Amino acid sequence: MKRVGRKSDCPINFALEVFGDSWSLLILRDIVFVGKKTYGEFLESRERIATNVLATRLELLERKGILHKTPHPKDNRKDLYTLSEKGLDLIPIAFEMMSWGVAHDPKAEKPAVDFIKRFHRNKSKLIKEVTDKVRAGGSVFSFN
Amino acid sequence: MKRVGRKSDCPINFALEVFGDSWSLLILRDIVFVGKKTYGEFLESRERIATNVLATRLELLERKGILHKTPHPKDNRKDLYTLSEKGLDLIPIAFEMMSWGVAHDPKAEKPAVDFIKRFHRNKSKLIKEVTDKVRAGGSVFSFN
Repeated sequence: MKRVGRKSDCPINFALEVFGDSWSLLILRDIVFVGKKTYGEFLESRERIATNVLATRLELLERKGILHKTPHPKDNRKDLYTLSEKGLDLIPIAFEMMSWGVAHDPKAEKPAVDFIKRFHRNKSKLIKEVTDKVRAGGSVFSFN
Repeated sequence: MKRVGRKSDCPINFALEVFGDSWSLLILRDIVFVGKKTYGEFLESRERIATNVLATRLELLERKGILHKTPHPKDNRKDLYTLSEKGLDLIPIAFEMMSWGVAHDPKAEKPAVDFIKRFHRNKSKLIKEVTDKVRAGGSVFSFN
């Protein structure tokens, strides 16, 4: 799936060339919903990403301007990954994917089902709320 | 990226395991925006999908219940691929991806930019309009 240069100027293709692989979107999910910020935290996902794949994806997302990497204020062996404004703009895509998953997966988890009910009551309100929260360092399922 | 069984019950992961690769979403785009319906038409995409990759993706999308395959009414050497209701439910994701692409790609194409302006005026109205049109055999940029 490695490609050199752009295959077209279609904006959907543009989006897919930046984050169109499963792991990138699962990293986004972990930041937005659970508030993960470090390599070690991303590595603990239930989907069990391989160390080399995670390192490559984080580097790619940083290079594409989706993630900012900054030194961890309390531990200089670690880096903090946070979403740029361009990365925060991916939140509506993540919510629509979650909505589709909830609608078509009989095993969808209760917190996700409840969250999507809120989403359908007022999509733009929830997108704004969550974007503001994540920008401030928090996440959907946390209060930090 | 081949995985056996489900890695988690997260609905975002569920969605990604069904269509979380670039080519699946480009096939969806070609159906929704341009009205493509046959293997030969999908093969002509500007992104130049390889024949074996296209065949595998179409089969996967059919098996996952996203696409229906029916014999072509006018040419029995061909099949017609159309979106199921589960597949039509992917339209909001495609629109949000396009919206992100338009916002962050200075080279985004004019018809896409204009379409996304309409989308932001009333998202749910446009999603319903396009879903109805595609269900009836049409597409965004065609009048059939």
